[in-house]
Amino acid sequence: MRVLSNEDVDQLLTMPECIEVLGAMYRDCANGQTLHVARLDSLCPSSESGAYYAFKQMAGAWPRRGVHALRINSDIISHPVIAGKIRRVKLPKANGRWVGLVFMFSSETGALLGIFPDGAVQMLRVGATNAIALKHLAREDARTLAIIGSGWQAGGQLMGALVERPFEQVRVYSSNPDNRSAFVAKAKARYPGLEILDIDSAQECVQGADVIMAATSSMVRVLEPTWLKPGVHLSCIKSEEVDQALLDGCDRVVVHIKAHSKHDDNVMPGTPNVNSEQERGWWNAPGNRFAEYSDLVQLVAGNTPGRKSPSEITCFVNNIGIGLQFAAVGALVLDKARSAGIGHELPDDWFSETVHP
Amino acid sequence: MRVLSNEDVDQLLTMPECIEVLGAMYRDCANGQTLHVARLDSLCPSSESGAYYAFKQMAGAWPRRGVHALRINSDIISHPVIAGKIRRVKLPKANGRWVGLVFMFSSETGALLGIFPDGAVQMLRVGATNAIALKHLAREDARTLAIIGSGWQAGGQLMGALVERPFEQVRVYSSNPDNRSAFVAKAKARYPGLEILDIDSAQECVQGADVIMAATSSMVRVLEPTWLKPGVHLSCIKSEEVDQALLDGCDRVVVHIKAHSKHDDNVMPGTPNVNSEQERGWWNAPGNRFAEYSDLVQLVAGNTPGRKSPSEITCFVNNIGIGLQFAAVGALVLDKARSAGIGHELPDDWFSETVHP
Repeated sequence: MRVLSNEDVDQLLTMPECIEVLGAMYRDCANGQTLHVARLDSLCPSSESGAYYAFKQMAGAWPRRGVHALRINSDIISHPVIAGKIRRVKLPKANGRWVGLVFMFSSETGALLGIFPDGAVQMLRVGATNAIALKHLAREDARTLAIIGSGWQAGGQLMGALVERPFEQVRVYSSNPDNRSAFVAKAKARYPGLEILDIDSAQECVQGADVIMAATSSMVRVLEPTWLKPGVHLSCIKSEEVDQALLDGCDRVVVHIKAHSKHDDNVMPGTPNVNSEQERGWWNAPGNRFAEYSDLVQLVAGNTPGRKSPSEITCFVNNIGIGLQFAAVGALVLDKARSAGIGHELPDDWFSETVHP
Repeated sequence: MRVLSNEDVDQLLTMPECIEVLGAMYRDCANGQTLHVARLDSLCPSSESGAYYAFKQMAGAWPRRGVHALRINSDIISHPVIAGKIRRVKLPKANGRWVGLVFMFSSETGALLGIFPDGAVQMLRVGATNAIALKHLAREDARTLAIIGSGWQAGGQLMGALVERPFEQVRVYSSNPDNRSAFVAKAKARYPGLEILDIDSAQECVQGADVIMAATSSMVRVLEPTWLKPGVHLSCIKSEEVDQALLDGCDRVVVHIKAHSKHDDNVMPGTPNVNSEQERGWWNAPGNRFAEYSDLVQLVAGNTPGRKSPSEITCFVNNIGIGLQFAAVGALVLDKARSAGIGHELPDDWFSETVHP
């Protein structure tokens, strides 16, 4: 049983191989060769004022690789208003840290194979997933990228996008100028040949961009429908960053997974700012068009066409994550960690038993 | 983060304190002060012939103790016919061992507090749960106990029963004579003052017993309705050990938890012996009376009366386990392990992270 850190995962995985392994998994998924497990969110009170405890379980199995992954998040969650918009903020109450973990099991023997924090894998899988959508839906000649958000998920979006298109200019907006300039400085150091601009208005940021990637914790839409111009491809990392009005301004919408949908009830009633937010879940609201959209599984399998014309406005909504993404990326990182001898190895016997339970 | 073994758990916990902590949890449960989480069973093919991979998730939170527990089983399962009856058998494919684990989290900070195999806790929680039912439903003057089954769960049943009534004679039947005599020898060594009989017929075993406890892996009923005499209390550790005809022969039936029910779909279609077994799930079959029965939560809370007369035939069906049992017993064992300095302590930082996932 191997314990890896986020640093280990970062060191072991590259974005192109994450894109490749996820693509292989989605193709098996389209052929019914994977196991989807429903995501489960459990909420209960915590003694932290204005916050609640949330335990999220996401699982999935990929028999071809003989793995089953369980990703959990064990969070204290609040919903503050920041820069006029409601956010979902996880409080680092575990000695100043957060708790998100991936448990990898063998579907051939049952054994627990590894445990690692979900942060690095999370960033890579979301970046890789949106990059796969971008590959199929953005214009071939896309050269200008707008990123809304400047957290570490934004970094994953940039990393994935650069694998699929030779972007020449990247524009970054976020509501927090300090985070934004730190993000831009870091990105400039990482990608020295790229023009990276720090922009203090969301509208100005997206104006003229070929691709817009939202990567925020916003619980409300992050851009206006009138800002979408012909030929643009838009993507987001959570359903709440877009809404039905914005999607109605797109010619075609592809979501991540239709087999699952996000429920409004993963927020605790009575928490400050929860009620107004619940009313905004467009995917469950009357008149929503969620059922009309195709998903990434069908796009990768070729059952849904990619971009049809240079003027089409396309949108990829990463509506919900799935345990299968962790199974795919987790299988890869464990294989590489074993070969490289990286991580803490603990006795298998600590995590198995001699009684038939 | 503390890793405990089954031996640690066995050394730290006693049956009376498990009964006590579960009783406190059930009382909070009756008052809506606990979190039930639906049990999730995921099945996928494994390359083992005639078997499949099953991943079971059970979770529950007990805010009063600030804990959330997740118990998982990662099993390769087959359904052989043994002694003419269909069993559910987990194959020890993890280097000759089984994989069932309990993960304990703090619902105050989110932190992973501990990991331990589920075997010892499983036996204690099932033994304690059936003992609580026995306390309320068996005759006060019960002195003769019949146990059907001779696996380690049977040992937990005996241990729990002895806490609640001063039994003088214990009769043991199981279809495997070798297991049975080994069980009897071990029990005689453990309880020297007790008369313990090895009996080679199920009917003879239960004849005249005041309490009958089934503790088998049988997928079909383990005794006949005509064997039930006035005043007896019957219990089982899984729904399949009884059926509707047997329950119809009882004056009163109490199940473990009505908030959850066991689904028939936790067995993989196409596995040998699965079809006939699925047809036998009495709790989902037409004409079943599951909805009429009360549960242990209501019994402990005093909302359902205990035994009403010396002649009543009562039955406790431990229809399904719940994550909350692991939360309660797990909180206790972790507290005791910390005080006693028992187990392997691993750095908390291995199981948390510095990024907001």
